Amino acid sequence: MKGNLFKELKFAVIGAGHGGQGIAGYLAYKGYKVNLYNRSIERIKKIKQRGYIDLVGDVVGRGILNLVTNSIEQAIKNVDVIMVVLPASAHKFIANNIAPFVTKDQYIVLNPGRTGGALEFKSIIARHNPLKEVCIVEAQTLLFACRALEEGKVKIFSKKEEVKVAALPAVRNHEFINKINEVFPEFTPASSVLETSFNNVGALLHPIPTILNCARIENTKGDFRYYIDGITPAVAKIIEQVDEERIQVARALGVKVMSLKEWLAYTYNAYGNTLCEALKNAKGYWGIQAPMSLDTRYIYEDVPQSLVPIWDMANHLSLQTPTIQAIVHLASILHNTDYYRSGRKVIDMGLEGLSINEIQAFVIDGQVSDSRGVVA
Amino acid sequence: MKGNLFKELKFAVIGAGHGGQGIAGYLAYKGYKVNLYNRSIERIKKIKQRGYIDLVGDVVGRGILNLVTNSIEQAIKNVDVIMVVLPASAHKFIANNIAPFVTKDQYIVLNPGRTGGALEFKSIIARHNPLKEVCIVEAQTLLFACRALEEGKVKIFSKKEEVKVAALPAVRNHEFINKINEVFPEFTPASSVLETSFNNVGALLHPIPTILNCARIENTKGDFRYYIDGITPAVAKIIEQVDEERIQVARALGVKVMSLKEWLAYTYNAYGNTLCEALKNAKGYWGIQAPMSLDTRYIYEDVPQSLVPIWDMANHLSLQTPTIQAIVHLASILHNTDYYRSGRKVIDMGLEGLSINEIQAFVIDGQVSDSRGVVA
Repeated sequence: MKGNLFKELKFAVIGAGHGGQGIAGYLAYKGYKVNLYNRSIERIKKIKQRGYIDLVGDVVGRGILNLVTNSIEQAIKNVDVIMVVLPASAHKFIANNIAPFVTKDQYIVLNPGRTGGALEFKSIIARHNPLKEVCIVEAQTLLFACRALEEGKVKIFSKKEEVKVAALPAVRNHEFINKINEVFPEFTPASSVLETSFNNVGALLHPIPTILNCARIENTKGDFRYYIDGITPAVAKIIEQVDEERIQVARALGVKVMSLKEWLAYTYNAYGNTLCEALKNAKGYWGIQAPMSLDTRYIYEDVPQSLVPIWDMANHLSLQTPTIQAIVHLASILHNTDYYRSGRKVIDMGLEGLSINEIQAFVIDGQVSDSRGVVA
Repeated sequence: MKGNLFKELKFAVIGAGHGGQGIAGYLAYKGYKVNLYNRSIERIKKIKQRGYIDLVGDVVGRGILNLVTNSIEQAIKNVDVIMVVLPASAHKFIANNIAPFVTKDQYIVLNPGRTGGALEFKSIIARHNPLKEVCIVEAQTLLFACRALEEGKVKIFSKKEEVKVAALPAVRNHEFINKINEVFPEFTPASSVLETSFNNVGALLHPIPTILNCARIENTKGDFRYYIDGITPAVAKIIEQVDEERIQVARALGVKVMSLKEWLAYTYNAYGNTLCEALKNAKGYWGIQAPMSLDTRYIYEDVPQSLVPIWDMANHLSLQTPTIQAIVHLASILHNTDYYRSGRKVIDMGLEGLSINEIQAFVIDGQVSDSRGVVA
């Protein structure tokens, strides 16, 4: 317990699900001033009453919050960093609601952005106020694996040693990293949001095994090991095909991406002759059960905010992604939703009509210069 | 045992798998002269040595065969009816090999044809000899559910009360039914091979649950109930979407088809508020386990010979079948095979360039007349 002696940086945490409670509790426990926002106040009644979040597991302690509110205006007022910790499907709502209040010296960090999150967020804010030069930062993944055991009590399973982040525009990477380093030394700069967006392995690991185990999930209420029993050589084949489609799109954009197999080696020290073997050797996955039903963010977040943006970027670049399309189509039937229609597309990312060079310039400098070097 | 007092009709049975042994044993047991052909003589060595097939289960008795051979020429010589009892993936091979020897007064019955089987068979024979007016008959399904317990010993689980069959051309339906009625009173005429082809429910019930349970099949070696555990509301949703696509194509061709739900009611007296419920009420499905691996005809037969012809006919008619395409695409990845490329297409059925009216005329009369009524 740090009492009321707050450190200099002030935070808003947007979203009080598992991850949001974890990040808010952690920041407060570390001595920062934290405002916690949730759209529904009902869901955080207990936290509001008590005013703190307890952490157990890898981090043990109590984080006393400055404010618990369902007013986004109050939550972000005078804070330095706005940590958005929500399924990417909520980004659009938050961007539209935060736009009138956000100031140009604030950082908005998407934890994570999935694919094209920062671009979409910036595009929405720009629509509200074209001059507002707010810096959106996209994290490739959430810092913690954590779970709220009950409201206001979060178990931190593990904290990653490194999380890649990119500012939009990337010319502001170092300014952001310098500012945040005392809090999150785990944050290291990616070349641009294209790197954090296209290294989104959730696009592969979430929808595909869920859909290819849809009967077993419904039949057993998810009572099997998601990565161990749920990913067999057949499922791995489909994942690898989608991985190739993702890598092809990323490479066309000039983005350095790891294959999923390389990523498993890099992140979890998990190796194998095949992708399937490597997945079985990722200890972090051993205890993870399948979702209990198909009403899971593995579909409703990762299909529209991870697979659709890759597919639509492929369209934009005249590339083919037939396996991604097949998965999106099946997900759409399962959820009675046209996920291509509702998903994040090139137009939502504010990149419609841009050439590869223009996209690259935009993510680095935040401005579109045409082929003659004229800044638009 | 009937000894050597054969009845008038003579049969060749092509294929000595579960179904082929069942049909051959049954016909021989009923007193008909039967030649049994198999491509590999190794696989029928024991039957050849002993010269008979024993039946147990719903039908009990011994069928003494006239000839057991791997010569297709010998097998079909002087027979009246050639019963092809093979996965549809073998039809092309058999058609090419039987073409030089078949005579115009013989009937070739595909048990079953899957989708477009009779059309493809006729097209191949016509390529060898355009004048040969052999009658191809397409059965909608196999008469028996049966399994060879060992080589030469077949268990008949059940015999269907009715099997729809159509001659190509359908003007020869009654001539065929009259001839075969003493042997197979279960055979009743369908309007044309389009009806038997597009009422192929294997297209729905085989590939979709197999692919959507691919992990569980590999993880448990198929140790779950295929129709009970393997078809949940989610899987049923995908099946229903494919069913709609199938029905749409059939209707465009003027073919009367039942939805799968109607078919379950008609065939198994199985009803339910939803497709999933109706499937659970089909007693015939209760004991059926999932395939032990993904190397199953549920994929390698039904994807290229059931789903691809529906998809390609949709192309021909400018209709959309996105769910069928998604399933074919995933199956192609799982089997490292381009099933659209290798599958049965409109051109293989000899229907390329034909209008709906011309297709209808062809399946009824066996000839293509153009819109002015001139026979081509």
